[in-house]
Amino acid sequence: MKHGLQTEDSILRRIIGMAKVPLRNLAGGSIALGIGDDAALFRPKPGREVILTCDWFLEGTHFLRDKHPPQALGWKCLARAVSDVAAMGGVPRCFLLSLALPKTHTGAWLDRFLRGLRRASGAFECALAGGDTTKHEKILIHVTVAGDARAGRAVLRSGARPGHGIFVSGRLGEAERGLRTLKRNRGPWNDTDPLTRKHLYPEPRLALGQWLVEKRMASAMMDLSDGLSSDLPRLCRASGVGARVHLDRIPLPNLSGTELTRGIDPVRLALHGGDDYELLFTVPRQSLSRIPKSFQGVRLTPIGEIIGDHKVQLVREDGSGQLLVPGGWDPFR
Amino acid sequence: MKHGLQTEDSILRRIIGMAKVPLRNLAGGSIALGIGDDAALFRPKPGREVILTCDWFLEGTHFLRDKHPPQALGWKCLARAVSDVAAMGGVPRCFLLSLALPKTHTGAWLDRFLRGLRRASGAFECALAGGDTTKHEKILIHVTVAGDARAGRAVLRSGARPGHGIFVSGRLGEAERGLRTLKRNRGPWNDTDPLTRKHLYPEPRLALGQWLVEKRMASAMMDLSDGLSSDLPRLCRASGVGARVHLDRIPLPNLSGTELTRGIDPVRLALHGGDDYELLFTVPRQSLSRIPKSFQGVRLTPIGEIIGDHKVQLVREDGSGQLLVPGGWDPFR
Repeated sequence: MKHGLQTEDSILRRIIGMAKVPLRNLAGGSIALGIGDDAALFRPKPGREVILTCDWFLEGTHFLRDKHPPQALGWKCLARAVSDVAAMGGVPRCFLLSLALPKTHTGAWLDRFLRGLRRASGAFECALAGGDTTKHEKILIHVTVAGDARAGRAVLRSGARPGHGIFVSGRLGEAERGLRTLKRNRGPWNDTDPLTRKHLYPEPRLALGQWLVEKRMASAMMDLSDGLSSDLPRLCRASGVGARVHLDRIPLPNLSGTELTRGIDPVRLALHGGDDYELLFTVPRQSLSRIPKSFQGVRLTPIGEIIGDHKVQLVREDGSGQLLVPGGWDPFR
Repeated sequence: MKHGLQTEDSILRRIIGMAKVPLRNLAGGSIALGIGDDAALFRPKPGREVILTCDWFLEGTHFLRDKHPPQALGWKCLARAVSDVAAMGGVPRCFLLSLALPKTHTGAWLDRFLRGLRRASGAFECALAGGDTTKHEKILIHVTVAGDARAGRAVLRSGARPGHGIFVSGRLGEAERGLRTLKRNRGPWNDTDPLTRKHLYPEPRLALGQWLVEKRMASAMMDLSDGLSSDLPRLCRASGVGARVHLDRIPLPNLSGTELTRGIDPVRLALHGGDDYELLFTVPRQSLSRIPKSFQGVRLTPIGEIIGDHKVQLVREDGSGQLLVPGGWDPFR
C-alpha cells in the first residue's frame, strides 16, 4: 500500500494482521474477543483479579523520531506498560494499542514498529486486543495492559514497614547511559550498539515479580521508571515510611575509561537515571535470608532498609548522610 | 498552586483529589485499588467478563483548544469511551485517564476539565482508577474504560444476519450540527447554546444497551462515532452481510430556517456526521415487534434491513437506490 492512500480502516487491518499470531496463540484463551469490535472482552480465571495499567510513549517527550529505531519503539512501548504488571507480581494477558501517526509514518515505519511490537507481544505473552488509531503531526503512542494476579496477592507500594530490607534487581543507570550513547551516535536508527540495548529493549522483570508474589517475600514493590531518587520516595510515601540507602551498595553501571574521562558519574546515573524498569522491592526481616544473590541471571542487591522516620536518606561509606533528593525524570520540571 | 511550580506528582495529587468521591462510592467495591500504585486492580463479579476499550481525544484532531470548554472535554472524553461499553451492552466500572498537557493548562483549565470529568464519572458510575500524566505542547487525552457484562452475553458487531432489522437510537447528525454551531459561535468556551449540547455533552446509551442485552433482542450492535455511512459498513463487514437503508426513515435533525437557508443539508448531517454516540443495532425478525418506539425518552427508529448481498445500499422513497459511500470522519482521509 502506498503512503497517502491509507485510511483508518486500512491501517487498522495491517495492525490486526501483524497481531494475528499472538492473539490466537497467547493468553490461554482468556481473550474472548480481540480487535475489530467496539471493545475487547477479557475473562480472568476464577480467583484472579484484573490488573490495569497504561503508559504514554510520546515523540519528543519519551523518544526521538530520528534516533529511536521503530522496532525498538514497538518493543519498548509494550515493555514499559508490562513492567507495571511485573511490579505487582502479576501476569500480563492483553493490551490495547493506541497510535496517532503522521501520514508519513503509516508505511515502512509502521511495519518496523509493528515487528518490534509483535516480538514483545510474544516474549511477554501479552496479546493485542484492541486500541484506537488516528492521525497527528507527532508520533503518539499509548499502551494499556491488562493482566491478572491471584486475588488479594498483588504487591502494592504501600506495604513497606520499618526494618524491612530494600532490594533492587539488575544494575541501575544503564538505560540512562544507553540513552546518552544513542544521542551521541551518528546517523539514524542504530540498535546494534550493546551499550544502548538496555535503553532500547528493556526487559520487564516478570518472572522475578511473580516469584516474589508466589513466595510471599515482597512487602512492597514498584518498577524503577523515573530513577531511584524519584521512585523510592514514592514507595515510601505510599507506605508512610522513610528509607536509608547505602551509597556503596547501589549496583552501578560499569563505565568504560572513555566514559569516565568524559566525566560521566556512575553514581548519578544509578540514582537519577530513568527507564531501567528494574524492580524495587522491600522484604520483611524474617525473609531477608531467603532472597538469593541473583534470580534467573539478574542480580538482586540489598541497598538499604526502611525506617520509621519519613525521610529518605543516602548514607555514605563513612556513615555521613544526606537527603536523597529526586533528580530523576519529571516532565513538568 | 501556581503555574510553573507544578510537578508530575503534584498534578497527580490534584487529579486524585478530584476523583476521591467517585472512586470510593462507585463501582460497587469492585475496584480493589485505585490510582497511586503501579496499576489498578479490578475484580469483576463471578460469571462476568471484562470489557476493555480506549479512545484518543486529541487537540486539533478531536477538539479545539479555544472552542471547546474544558468542562465539556472532561465530560466528553469519558462519554466517548463509555459509549463503546454501552455498544456491547455492558456496565462501565472504572477508567484510566492519561493526560499530556502544556504547562499553561495545569492550573484553572485542568480544574475545570476535572470538574466535567467528575460529573461524567458520577453519571456513568465509572470510577477513576489510574492513568498516566506527562507534558506536551498540545493537549492530549486518552481514556481507557473497563466494564463488564455477563460472560458470553456482550453484543458484538458480527451477529447481524439477512432479514434482521436495522435500528438507530435518537436523531442522527445533531452532534455534527452542534460542532458547526460551536465553530461559528464567537468567543471562547460557550457551552450554554442548546444546539451545541449534543456535541459537547453526548450521552452514552448505557441503559438502552443493557436492556437490549437483558432481553436478548439485539443480534449485533455498535455505537455511531464516525457517522452512519462509515459505521454501518463496518458492522456489515464484521457480520459478513450487507444492508438496505431507507432514506426517508432516517431520523434527521430538526434544522432551523436559518440553517436551511444557509444550505445545511439534514440528510448529509445524518448520514455522515460523527460524534452522535447513538446505538446502531440489528434485531432478528421474531423480535422486531418487541422493539418499542422509544426507550426512556430516546426514540428507536427502524431504518432498514440486513441483506445477504455484501453491499450497503441507500434506498430513496421512489425505490431507486445507490451505494452508501463512507463520508464520515476518517482522520487519514
